[in-house]
Amino acid sequence: MFRRLTLAAALAAAIALPVSAAPKDEVAQIVESAAFKTAVQTLAAEHDRTVADIVAITQIPAPPFKEAARAEAYRAMLEAHGLQDVEIDAEGNVMGLRKGTGDGPLVVISAHLDTVFPEGTDLTVRREGTRLYAPGIADDSRSLAVLLAYLRALDAAGIRTRSDVLVLGTVGEEGAGDLRGVRHFFEKGKYKDRIGAFFSMDGIDPANLVHVGVGSKRYRAVFKGPGGHSYGAFGIVNPMAALAGAIVEFYEIRPPTRPKVTYSASVIGGGTSVNAIPDAAYAEFDMRSADAGELAKLETRFKAILEAAAQAENAARSTRFGAVEVELIPIGDRPAGSTPRTSPLVARTAAAIEALGYRPVFSASSTDANAPMALGVPAVTIGSGGSGGRAHSLQEWIDVEPVESVRGMSVGLAALLAAAGVE
Amino acid sequence: MFRRLTLAAALAAAIALPVSAAPKDEVAQIVESAAFKTAVQTLAAEHDRTVADIVAITQIPAPPFKEAARAEAYRAMLEAHGLQDVEIDAEGNVMGLRKGTGDGPLVVISAHLDTVFPEGTDLTVRREGTRLYAPGIADDSRSLAVLLAYLRALDAAGIRTRSDVLVLGTVGEEGAGDLRGVRHFFEKGKYKDRIGAFFSMDGIDPANLVHVGVGSKRYRAVFKGPGGHSYGAFGIVNPMAALAGAIVEFYEIRPPTRPKVTYSASVIGGGTSVNAIPDAAYAEFDMRSADAGELAKLETRFKAILEAAAQAENAARSTRFGAVEVELIPIGDRPAGSTPRTSPLVARTAAAIEALGYRPVFSASSTDANAPMALGVPAVTIGSGGSGGRAHSLQEWIDVEPVESVRGMSVGLAALLAAAGVE
Repeated sequence: MFRRLTLAAALAAAIALPVSAAPKDEVAQIVESAAFKTAVQTLAAEHDRTVADIVAITQIPAPPFKEAARAEAYRAMLEAHGLQDVEIDAEGNVMGLRKGTGDGPLVVISAHLDTVFPEGTDLTVRREGTRLYAPGIADDSRSLAVLLAYLRALDAAGIRTRSDVLVLGTVGEEGAGDLRGVRHFFEKGKYKDRIGAFFSMDGIDPANLVHVGVGSKRYRAVFKGPGGHSYGAFGIVNPMAALAGAIVEFYEIRPPTRPKVTYSASVIGGGTSVNAIPDAAYAEFDMRSADAGELAKLETRFKAILEAAAQAENAARSTRFGAVEVELIPIGDRPAGSTPRTSPLVARTAAAIEALGYRPVFSASSTDANAPMALGVPAVTIGSGGSGGRAHSLQEWIDVEPVESVRGMSVGLAALLAAAGVE
Repeated sequence: MFRRLTLAAALAAAIALPVSAAPKDEVAQIVESAAFKTAVQTLAAEHDRTVADIVAITQIPAPPFKEAARAEAYRAMLEAHGLQDVEIDAEGNVMGLRKGTGDGPLVVISAHLDTVFPEGTDLTVRREGTRLYAPGIADDSRSLAVLLAYLRALDAAGIRTRSDVLVLGTVGEEGAGDLRGVRHFFEKGKYKDRIGAFFSMDGIDPANLVHVGVGSKRYRAVFKGPGGHSYGAFGIVNPMAALAGAIVEFYEIRPPTRPKVTYSASVIGGGTSVNAIPDAAYAEFDMRSADAGELAKLETRFKAILEAAAQAENAARSTRFGAVEVELIPIGDRPAGSTPRTSPLVARTAAAIEALGYRPVFSASSTDANAPMALGVPAVTIGSGGSGGRAHSLQEWIDVEPVESVRGMSVGLAALLAAAGVE
């Protein structure tokens, strides 16, 4: 997930703080160094290879909970890039270490392996000029490839960081994955107590700086009823009618726009045969906000709507074979959190964005960074550069026009070096 | 499909007419004749063979649209029973002629070859006492075997009918088959202009007399929209909200109960991920009535509701990435029709049921007989005798206790002879 949250961004822009002088100076020193310039020249010189990596990664299926093939490919890529302690952990995350010169806290730079697209989705990348089209190409294949480009650039420029840098490919960032990869990493992973800063590179926009983690509540609502023959049992309650009523009521809600609150009915299923009144029908619902209080209010209303819909169906039709009931199964609960605007990580990252000529857009989103944010570990989510759109749709695209692509990539590299320190 | 429609049956029973004297007399004359008694004795004497035929037919797979193996076996059986002009037509129906003594209209007695069960279903018949268990054994393997028993009984008793009798095994009676076999027979078959009466033997109950063909219109409605990220694209149209609105409106319809009109939203699907606004959502809809006019009215209203739901969604939310549209895919279209209670065919069949000691249950259903009924060709659906249950389930069973089985079989034989006339 990489989209900038427009309203939060607008709000943030309106109250934008100047980046403090010290981080600006630190970053300027890095960006103006001969080594950094060599690194950026390498990003440019190897841009075709990076594009080839984006294409290769995109075309390896990584549906939710089925990221193993892409994980294994990425593991091999990390090894080929000379990282140490390359491994796939118990949850399926891939990682490898680039040793620094000191013993400082670890800096993690991460991208997610998984896509929202189910098995069987055509992932063939289609190219039109500098545009590449394919599901998942922006979210988050490009980031995975860009992290590899950073490794080559750092090596070519002979740059050593003070902190160790861990390159991480996570599973389960999207949807029902419920941040399972990054949660495991922070709850049970072997590096969990060493992490000083965490970057999630998720999506494209190099000006985007996510420092607020949008919380979400997700449910599968299953309406159950007696079921029966569509003709013989006509007139009995239909759980699908109750479900439809709930969706209609839910979509009547006009949530506040400030703080932004959103909802969606996203996946439905149910029924067995066209000539049978179904005995069950379900839908999945997504509710989000950066504001925990607004989110809780929406959740309460949602639950009341579901109950009322079941009752309305039982009142509208016969319950002689049984009534409609609704069961609510939690399928997602992402913590809200934030890294303060005044923190060194946010300040340095903002400085890196500015140093490359962009205007930082401070924003809120739901990404792997939610997990460390909720634990108080400094974390931000940044873009991989270039432009793109239509993430989570089959029309997803990126533009890899080299000049803008490399400039965008340079932001993350500068931010990483600012966080990890350079000798 | 052979299930009696309980409500229609109860209603019919309440207003049951006495069977007129003339058909009663005709049937009594047949049933009391020495030849008929010989025929029934043959049914009894050969009952074990009939059971063996039921088992053999049941164990030959005949999934929807894949009835060829069973058709070929049945063709060979019809030839072995001495029928003339045995053939498999272009649609896959099997048939053979038993010549009569005159030139009268043809009488067709039919059973369907297809089952509801997909390829790979275990069709092994399990026997417990007089009970046989296997998918499709009641619906409609027993009928296919009983028709063969009739041929042997007629031959043994030396009975010649006035009308030619055509024994027919149809394809595509169930579900998505949409009566394709019997429709072909009546629309393009070589006998289509010669048919004076049509029996469909479908299911078990020897008291059941289907003289009303419930018509159905079935659609898959696919709502499509742009799709997008549940948070980033919040506010755009959601095809699922449109679908839900359509279901809610559809379920506001209060159709007449006389003639009975029913509808159902039965199977739904759509969406790819909990955090994506779906780009498509669909539902399947079933509408039925024995009254063609009422069914057409409902269908018109249904279509208007779907269009209005798409438009309402486009008015309620943003179409900046695209609008919601609905596509309607016909998946079933069974004609409605009926054969009047006062017709000679219904009166004689009722008399045959009574003559064998059962109380006729006049009922409405959707069977192969719908096709001739819709064309005004006299048609009824009757049972093959014995008892059974759980049709369309893997627990389907019949009881072949010989006394009751033969008594039930005798009903159809008497009805056939009454319709075809005996020298």
